[in-house]
Amino acid sequence: MKILTSKPIDDGFYMPAEFEKHYGCLIIWPERADSWQYGAVAARKAFKEVITAIAQSEKVTVLASEAQYDNAREMLPECVRIVEMSSNDSWARDYAPTFVKNLSGEIRGIDWGFNAWGGLYDGLYFPWDKDNKMARKICDLFETDCYNSRDFIFEGGSVSVDGEGTAIVTEECLLSTGRNPNMSKDEIELRLKQYLNVKKIIWLKNGIYNDETNGHTDNICAFVKPGEVVLAWTDDKYDPQYEISCACCELLKNETDAKERHLKIHKLIQPSPIYMLDEECQGLISFDGKPTRVEGERLAASYVNFYISNDAVIMPGFGDKNDDKAKKLLEQIFTDRKVIQIYAKDILIGGGNIHCITQQIPYFNQRFC
Amino acid sequence: MKILTSKPIDDGFYMPAEFEKHYGCLIIWPERADSWQYGAVAARKAFKEVITAIAQSEKVTVLASEAQYDNAREMLPECVRIVEMSSNDSWARDYAPTFVKNLSGEIRGIDWGFNAWGGLYDGLYFPWDKDNKMARKICDLFETDCYNSRDFIFEGGSVSVDGEGTAIVTEECLLSTGRNPNMSKDEIELRLKQYLNVKKIIWLKNGIYNDETNGHTDNICAFVKPGEVVLAWTDDKYDPQYEISCACCELLKNETDAKERHLKIHKLIQPSPIYMLDEECQGLISFDGKPTRVEGERLAASYVNFYISNDAVIMPGFGDKNDDKAKKLLEQIFTDRKVIQIYAKDILIGGGNIHCITQQIPYFNQRFC
Repeated sequence: MKILTSKPIDDGFYMPAEFEKHYGCLIIWPERADSWQYGAVAARKAFKEVITAIAQSEKVTVLASEAQYDNAREMLPECVRIVEMSSNDSWARDYAPTFVKNLSGEIRGIDWGFNAWGGLYDGLYFPWDKDNKMARKICDLFETDCYNSRDFIFEGGSVSVDGEGTAIVTEECLLSTGRNPNMSKDEIELRLKQYLNVKKIIWLKNGIYNDETNGHTDNICAFVKPGEVVLAWTDDKYDPQYEISCACCELLKNETDAKERHLKIHKLIQPSPIYMLDEECQGLISFDGKPTRVEGERLAASYVNFYISNDAVIMPGFGDKNDDKAKKLLEQIFTDRKVIQIYAKDILIGGGNIHCITQQIPYFNQRFC
Repeated sequence: MKILTSKPIDDGFYMPAEFEKHYGCLIIWPERADSWQYGAVAARKAFKEVITAIAQSEKVTVLASEAQYDNAREMLPECVRIVEMSSNDSWARDYAPTFVKNLSGEIRGIDWGFNAWGGLYDGLYFPWDKDNKMARKICDLFETDCYNSRDFIFEGGSVSVDGEGTAIVTEECLLSTGRNPNMSKDEIELRLKQYLNVKKIIWLKNGIYNDETNGHTDNICAFVKPGEVVLAWTDDKYDPQYEISCACCELLKNETDAKERHLKIHKLIQPSPIYMLDEECQGLISFDGKPTRVEGERLAASYVNFYISNDAVIMPGFGDKNDDKAKKLLEQIFTDRKVIQIYAKDILIGGGNIHCITQQIPYFNQRFC
């Protein structure tokens, strides 16, 4: 593995869209007792369902701690590879490498800086050193070279790309105080253009209501094909989500993508508000002496947080009246993929959802190293 | 990865000779402070030299602890892959899988039981749980299926095969009290025939003098091509090694291999006796309150403990008057490979040598999984 100090744009590498063909997927096995209630037992069952669904059509590598390796091996299908790797938590979307590809079909990883979604300002745990080392270790594991962008704090969940030159991000996240306070919006935009190799960046104002990642894009808006996005939506004017979704919709309507297309916007209904229950809170150990969740806290649930595998869309369900409606819309959009809905409150409690725990590896031609 | 309960012999898999073509090599990065003097600094330099030499002609994967990953990455060439994996020490020969191959060019691993060369009877450290889990994890990493032979205690260093049906072992090791005390010699022979898929097993009585592994084969005798072995040798009748080598020589002269060939025996001179120095002993922490080495202890040095890579033979040197003579013999034997001699007392102090710290992966045709 080479650590590269050049920029993907200068080397002809770009980030493909998630709906393009994958080699496989990375997932980090959950364990952390202040993220996953009751010893992560229910979380691991939900992760297993997600892994099993993805493994139907692409290779899944699960990264597990030394302590969890045997358990993961016991629980997961034989076709899933498990590799020991240390982490602070299980958010492959945010700190596994963002993979970029060139026209010859080679891939490389980007190693962004990671500070647990806000560092000492408003980060969600401390320390985050093991997470921050994962991108490089994963590139090493897959024998792909690795772009060094560690001086720029960025998570994979904060962007959606169409693979044709357009990226969607949120100001709430990318301009947050806890990430790159010394960079201007223009400087951040330039960095993304150089590393994702996109021409156009669409800046939404905010992500989902009460999203502790400072409003990651992947919980509110995602490209489903070039020129088309899904947008988290509610018709309930009394829900604080309503104004956020309306603002995003207005902004997207008035934008064009890198190819100057107007975007088709699919409004994807939100589940009814989902709250932490007392029993769930009791299943979490405290962090630094403080509770990580409190009873009645509204969780940042969203059907937008799905993963597009080679032959399926793996989406969350919440046991909610809107589960079916959301699934039907995705079935209408992804006509050539099976839509698989997995009950995911046990992932949501950890702070994200199915998209957050996955990281696709684009299909590539190079033989290892 | 599938855990297989069948036997390689029934599936058409056999252990190829080390001098056949490799895909690559496994090495475990040294760290343990009661094995490697002065924080393993000199050992890591020696390992680096070995790794760099092997990486000239085959892919090397280095398994490093979480704590050592960054250091290994910093020290080793870019073309070497480093993967995080926990271990108790660094003897890939003994507890990485023994790889077997079929005629279609597929490979599988064998997961032998490992108990630190004698378990609670005369093993060299405790616990050995991380080592014992490595074979399976390595098979998982390489996406090869894995034969479960964990109920049989066996180390890769205790056998040399010719790839044509013959194995050489020692009674001192395989019949030792600390390994499989409830199995008869016939039962052990049967197990090896079933798993290595060999027809003939040649039983030497003893390994090298004072070899704490209970006389591993790979320190005294090794196949260099079908029908030819090197045997550790001394002409010094006052050296306790003399009688051991003579006995092995007599036995080998009177044996034939699986193809009924008489063996050509190359006598490979031993270095002059090598002892632990006081300064070296002071660089080792104690184990369980007892010193792991004492001043004046004779180490089991041997030039036989070399590794055959695709285009080289990587052999130890000891700064001894016999270094050149030993190298010249190997050059005469391996006419199509470069013989690279690496100063290896810093590996020897840990308890083995270049062969002990390596494990070849035969060349294979199957695409991962």
